[in-house]
Amino acid sequence: MESLNLRPATPADVPQILQFIRDLATYEREPDAVLATEADLLRDGFGETKRFVCILAELTDASTITPAGFALYFYNYSTWRGHAGIYLEDLYVSPEHRGKGIGKALLTRVAAIAVAEGCPRYEWSVLDWNQPSIDFYQQLGAVMKSEWKGMQVSGEALAALAAQSK
Amino acid sequence: MESLNLRPATPADVPQILQFIRDLATYEREPDAVLATEADLLRDGFGETKRFVCILAELTDASTITPAGFALYFYNYSTWRGHAGIYLEDLYVSPEHRGKGIGKALLTRVAAIAVAEGCPRYEWSVLDWNQPSIDFYQQLGAVMKSEWKGMQVSGEALAALAAQSK
Repeated sequence: MESLNLRPATPADVPQILQFIRDLATYEREPDAVLATEADLLRDGFGETKRFVCILAELTDASTITPAGFALYFYNYSTWRGHAGIYLEDLYVSPEHRGKGIGKALLTRVAAIAVAEGCPRYEWSVLDWNQPSIDFYQQLGAVMKSEWKGMQVSGEALAALAAQSK
Repeated sequence: MESLNLRPATPADVPQILQFIRDLATYEREPDAVLATEADLLRDGFGETKRFVCILAELTDASTITPAGFALYFYNYSTWRGHAGIYLEDLYVSPEHRGKGIGKALLTRVAAIAVAEGCPRYEWSVLDWNQPSIDFYQQLGAVMKSEWKGMQVSGEALAALAAQSK
């Protein structure tokens, strides 16, 4: 009998986490976008300054443990609430294990972590053309912050902006 | 001769930071939205687990130091880049000190911090009807992540979502 187990990732899971990150990028049709290395994830997830937390989903039966997906989040901050919130950066389930409720199990587990830690908000992002996901999230009680747009500076533009600092 | 000084905030600045947060909420016509207390900001900005960093802008002359604005950011995470980035949560300049380049000085100072710390991305959000700000940010090299929408769960909906975790 196959059962689902969710657990916090450990340093030994870094190769699997990186594989999931690559699988997710491939699914998003950006297979070459992943520049992260195992050393990066070890430093930022399990080193002195933790920049993210990862929860692994595994399917277990009598003899085997099969990695099936992961959730990766970090803490943002609400100056209105005066408290950290949780931002879910990645949520991924391997294609062969979809339809088993693993995505929802990961999503709700991170919600439970948010509540346990007193975080007033739990947030993530969705592509605006991905209506099935939007519908699913709204059924779960999420609201869309539809007036807000993200701005990003990176690469040479970031270097140029930084150079203007006096 | 008045001059501008930017510096990292200290615990002694917490009352001023909270006042700026309230001023910003009032400017955004949400004066009652700020539930944060000085104890919250002390814990999250200067305690064991730092959830945000605050830079203060001050105008100084021979005899006085006048607080003029602030920038407050936290670290997000890019699993593609394998590195933390900087997310600018709040940027505020007191109305009486606008037009002096203080907002741009704060924005570029945080860009310089991002570069110095090896952060590949510097991000913030803007209201989609605030075209003057969007134009200003785009002139500075920022690109809009226009396909992405933020989803948020809070309050009773978050408790209900958490309760579904097995």
